Amino acid sequence: MTQSPNWVFLTRKYDFPASHRLFNPDFSEEENARVFRQCNNVNGHGHNYELEVTVKGIPDPRLGMVVDIYELDQIVQRVLLQQVDHKNLNLDVEFLHGVIPTAENMVCAFWKELSPHIPQPAQLARLRLVETRNNFVEYRGESI
Amino acid sequence: MTQSPNWVFLTRKYDFPASHRLFNPDFSEEENARVFRQCNNVNGHGHNYELEVTVKGIPDPRLGMVVDIYELDQIVQRVLLQQVDHKNLNLDVEFLHGVIPTAENMVCAFWKELSPHIPQPAQLARLRLVETRNNFVEYRGESI
Amino acid sequence: MTQSPNWVFLTRKYDFPASHRLFNPDFSEEENARVFRQCNNVNGHGHNYELEVTVKGIPDPRLGMVVDIYELDQIVQRVLLQQVDHKNLNLDVEFLHGVIPTAENMVCAFWKELSPHIPQPAQLARLRLVETRNNFVEYRGESI
Amino acid sequence: MTQSPNWVFLTRKYDFPASHRLFNPDFSEEENARVFRQCNNVNGHGHNYELEVTVKGIPDPRLGMVVDIYELDQIVQRVLLQQVDHKNLNLDVEFLHGVIPTAENMVCAFWKELSPHIPQPAQLARLRLVETRNNFVEYRGESI
Amino acid sequence: MTQSPNWVFLTRKYDFPASHRLFNPDFSEEENARVFRQCNNVNGHGHNYELEVTVKGIPDPRLGMVVDIYELDQIVQRVLLQQVDHKNLNLDVEFLHGVIPTAENMVCAFWKELSPHIPQPAQLARLRLVETRNNFVEYRGESI
Amino acid sequence: MTQSPNWVFLTRKYDFPASHRLFNPDFSEEENARVFRQCNNVNGHGHNYELEVTVKGIPDPRLGMVVDIYELDQIVQRVLLQQVDHKNLNLDVEFLHGVIPTAENMVCAFWKELSPHIPQPAQLARLRLVETRNNFVEYRGESI
Repeated sequence: MTQSPNWVFLTRKYDFPASHRLFNPDFSEEENARVFRQCNNVNGHGHNYELEVTVKGIPDPRLGMVVDIYELDQIVQRVLLQQVDHKNLNLDVEFLHGVIPTAENMVCAFWKELSPHIPQPAQLARLRLVETRNNFVEYRGESI
Repeated sequence: MTQSPNWVFLTRKYDFPASHRLFNPDFSEEENARVFRQCNNVNGHGHNYELEVTVKGIPDPRLGMVVDIYELDQIVQRVLLQQVDHKNLNLDVEFLHGVIPTAENMVCAFWKELSPHIPQPAQLARLRLVETRNNFVEYRGESI
Repeated sequence: MTQSPNWVFLTRKYDFPASHRLFNPDFSEEENARVFRQCNNVNGHGHNYELEVTVKGIPDPRLGMVVDIYELDQIVQRVLLQQVDHKNLNLDVEFLHGVIPTAENMVCAFWKELSPHIPQPAQLARLRLVETRNNFVEYRGESI
Repeated sequence: MTQSPNWVFLTRKYDFPASHRLFNPDFSEEENARVFRQCNNVNGHGHNYELEVTVKGIPDPRLGMVVDIYELDQIVQRVLLQQVDHKNLNLDVEFLHGVIPTAENMVCAFWKELSPHIPQPAQLARLRLVETRNNFVEYRGESI
Repeated sequence: MTQSPNWVFLTRKYDFPASHRLFNPDFSEEENARVFRQCNNVNGHGHNYELEVTVKGIPDPRLGMVVDIYELDQIVQRVLLQQVDHKNLNLDVEFLHGVIPTAENMVCAFWKELSPHIPQPAQLARLRLVETRNNFVEYRGESI
Repeated sequence: MTQSPNWVFLTRKYDFPASHRLFNPDFSEEENARVFRQCNNVNGHGHNYELEVTVKGIPDPRLGMVVDIYELDQIVQRVLLQQVDHKNLNLDVEFLHGVIPTAENMVCAFWKELSPHIPQPAQLARLRLVETRNNFVEYRGESI
């Protein structure tokens, strides 16, 4: 991994319950039921999402830290958790409007929201969104 | 614990995501917001509930088992999980109609549904409903 | 369990890192080293303690709750966590003065501090203190 | 729980991989296949068992301990783990001869082996044997 | 990580108990005992293996998904789990014939079996095989 | 990941409790309190650290192993755990003298100590140091 020399990666975990319903408004009812199965239930259902935020950086020699954890907590709280915690992801979250709230789409949208706010010189390195005990998604950013 | 001699307790874990909204229709909007806080969000939110079902019995000497796990799985599936899995607990679940779907009320309602179906001579001994990584409720049955 | 009819048990988990050193001032240095082994290290060592607080009660019919979790959190924070979080248990905690800070002694001392503050009619039913991934202690109160 | 006043319960976790095959020599091949299902596979299969040993006692006032954990570890190692760790439970374990190695039967046999060896005045209070991520059994001793 | 732009990684966990015995038929009995230690026990022993399957892809814009989880489950079930679940890995699994069933060898063999079956355009990105609470192996594919 | 072809990664977990106090001797008391917050408590506090050691290699064809786990355990025990287990990280650990014992600095210092001792041809690939249930750091080595 020669392109990531001497980085230290720090990961912090957060929790938030939220509900969602998976459907595509361009699909027929039958098509929605077929492709989204149980997750297409009209009244929605929910999850205790667990979000792991990983930042990378060179530890500040005077502090021994990649990032101030308390500052990171406040940023994640303000930028992400406050929008999604105890919310309906189809209806209540502005930055998810028009997005089918699958874990895949959520983790990409979270990256876009959070990554400009990571305190320099640390950088966002990875987001992991745990949807259930048996599945999670990860995103490590986009290139062009 | 002289009243529970030589029982063996067998516990089996199940998962189901579901959404709920906490409110009491007899309360004003303000009162609902005050007592149920975040959980009163109008569009609901959700959880990955984890349910632990504990039965007790004397192992059958020819089988060495308290209960046939596959049979137990089918019963829990049919009696409970099929009603609540990927559902909205306020709207979709018949045996929760009129019940505020707190973890406390859910675990009592689950006991009532499940306990008559445990294959004799095993008995339902405990239900634990895990709502988030940081809180769970337990119920061990009613006397009288 | 005829003496605990229709209780619902609610458990809430908390974390706090703290350090301790095990020794008895009445013992010789050699005796302390022999009975407390590694835990007698002069400069102390530490743990990420995990505390599970279990209260029992009958769910309030208007709320479906045994206790208001937010209120419980504030009480546990004020009465216990504020005293022990990021502290040296031998030196910094008033209610542990003169107490060898083993998990066993800590859980009993925690019970004494916390149990009078649980909001009525709920009652403290159990404390579990997890010291490492491989051991924990529990206390369920004193009789007499 | 008036019959267990002022006990402190200490639990310690151990791991051991082992293999087993479930069958009753008195059954026909078809009957064994029917009642033990997948667990009847002729060549056996295995588990990473996790064993939780809970002892109860009054903390020794000079030590603050219910039991010396290092001594407990050595006893559990000698009396139980050495017999079952990395073993075939049908063939290699003397105290399981003639026993169908279900988790239920194992936890009872473990209790019989271990309980006389717990250092007085502490007493064995509970054994929990975790067979998979989704099921475990418990035993709390026999009366009479 | 410029070579993996805008991938979303989806991971799904599966469990299967199985038994194995480590030995190399080309070694003497003594040599087998020396290099494989406890895992060389003649009657075998077992594990609850946990398998994490990670696939990567660009979420389908109409579905928001990298892969249909239900389809992935069926493939993993058919291609891998059905062969190894509740099996003796030395005797019962065709694709492991002649392979010493260490976790390292298993994860490579699993990759070879599974990777051609991942539904296009998603690709297999990583396999993690958890053997015990304290060790796991990972494989991310072969180059040429 | 073309630069890491056909590696198998093996990870092994270890635990150790230790205490630390975060402060920079070049800072004023107020500055230390401000930047290190709770972790600056004069009497120190502690953690149950969990250390994951990942080595990579090509499985030896005669053994099916990347590394002999027992040998790895002994090396990690001798080189790292013996120095830090049940110790005060500010005072007791020679290779941490002059280092602020943040998780970031610890994981880099651990890498330097451990990496020359990994049995060839395996190589150290990653260290993960888990400080609390909610945060951990990783290091994958230095370039140049």
